[in-house]
Amino acid sequence: MPRYRLVLEYDGTEFRGWQSQAAGARTVQGTLEEAARALLGQPVAIAGAGRTDAGVHAEGQVASFALPDGAVRLAPEALARALNAGLPADLAVRELAIVPDDFHPRRDACAKLYRYDLWNGAARSPLRRRRWVFVPGTLDVDAMKRAARDFEGTHDFAALQSTGSSVRTTKRTLLRCEWVGAGPELRLFVEGSGFLRHMVRTLAGTLIEVGQGRRGAAGVPALLAGGDRAAAGPTAPAHGLTLVRVRYPHPAGGAQAVSSLKSGG
Amino acid sequence: MPRYRLVLEYDGTEFRGWQSQAAGARTVQGTLEEAARALLGQPVAIAGAGRTDAGVHAEGQVASFALPDGAVRLAPEALARALNAGLPADLAVRELAIVPDDFHPRRDACAKLYRYDLWNGAARSPLRRRRWVFVPGTLDVDAMKRAARDFEGTHDFAALQSTGSSVRTTKRTLLRCEWVGAGPELRLFVEGSGFLRHMVRTLAGTLIEVGQGRRGAAGVPALLAGGDRAAAGPTAPAHGLTLVRVRYPHPAGGAQAVSSLKSGG
Repeated sequence: MPRYRLVLEYDGTEFRGWQSQAAGARTVQGTLEEAARALLGQPVAIAGAGRTDAGVHAEGQVASFALPDGAVRLAPEALARALNAGLPADLAVRELAIVPDDFHPRRDACAKLYRYDLWNGAARSPLRRRRWVFVPGTLDVDAMKRAARDFEGTHDFAALQSTGSSVRTTKRTLLRCEWVGAGPELRLFVEGSGFLRHMVRTLAGTLIEVGQGRRGAAGVPALLAGGDRAAAGPTAPAHGLTLVRVRYPHPAGGAQAVSSLKSGG
Repeated sequence: MPRYRLVLEYDGTEFRGWQSQAAGARTVQGTLEEAARALLGQPVAIAGAGRTDAGVHAEGQVASFALPDGAVRLAPEALARALNAGLPADLAVRELAIVPDDFHPRRDACAKLYRYDLWNGAARSPLRRRRWVFVPGTLDVDAMKRAARDFEGTHDFAALQSTGSSVRTTKRTLLRCEWVGAGPELRLFVEGSGFLRHMVRTLAGTLIEVGQGRRGAAGVPALLAGGDRAAAGPTAPAHGLTLVRVRYPHPAGGAQAVSSLKSGG
């Protein structure tokens, strides 16, 4: 039976993340599986490219599922529309395509792009409050920009990993770590082949401290060399983080037939 | 006692508009007056530049109040911070300044700029759902842009006024009526010296019909000449509308001392 690749957008505010240990928690994966089950009449297992935390948003999360045996075969466009009709307002399928049977959204991904959004205005911003983290006061944006670049490349990122994690290796490669904007809107783009738990948020929290003059712009290499989580900045709030895009080695994530959901504009 | 000018930002989703006839309704004016009363220990009457409808947002609404006799005189910056501490997350003071005693935010305004935000993507957008109105399907954006320009200038806008309104004259002047963007994000900027009830939303609803091919791009002059509300398009949803800015003939709305709330960026 065909396998589908989905590109998802969600507002993370009301989700307990992509998946959760907690029984009955409202998760993105669970909400999606429930909508697919209701539509197809059978349980469907959906895998995601990245397990976003509670409160983290996505503009381009990638997920995949195989059509269960006996399910009605819908064209990708019709399947996307039917799924969207059954999903809540804070979750939607942006694209849907048929992919090779062996496609896996996490294993096959070659890079994920995250963005962390900071509001450095004179006052808090009601219209930005769900997606931008308000940091008042003067920030040395040039120092933040210089320090961010020192995270790029292949390093041991143990200092940025939340305590209690257990992974085989804490070595990761960042293709990009860059602040865009000059204020009051500041956006940190972080692209990498893989991430440790809370890594982007700890990176953002550390760079905010650089901007506030609470740590030097030149301290990143020593921070990484030390490998000590206590030496890094705090984990910045979840609501500033968005999973923007997941990249795959083949065009469109190995898609054979790209969804015909086209922009009307 | 000094008079203050405030620039306000709010997320209109949970407000019943700037003010409301309904008893106990949560309004922007009422929420602001309650915060000022709690801070200053006395009732305060707050006037606004525009009476935004329920669900309409503001990035730059302007309001004004006079400090009551006997109230503690706070510096503008301190007063803004104290008000913001007492306001809910969906409403904030962006700027605060001392203005001449005779300043009135509505009477003195020379122009108001509104923006109507349209999402014409392939699927609905969860992250845009509170501020962008989703219009699926192909839109003729060029036709929308041409038709919008025909609303500019001084006209009788009776055809765009919600039925049941009673105003002295339905003649208004639009300085600007322009779509920006090529899709899927489309933003209609409408600036004028005054507006009739629901005028911008009816204008947006009419231009959406032009984009959908349900009315001709050249029909605006005849629509205005006819003066018939039934001949115009539907009133587009409130949540797509934002009051962006109010302009005054004197710099900073006659401000004598601009708030020292400064952007840190």
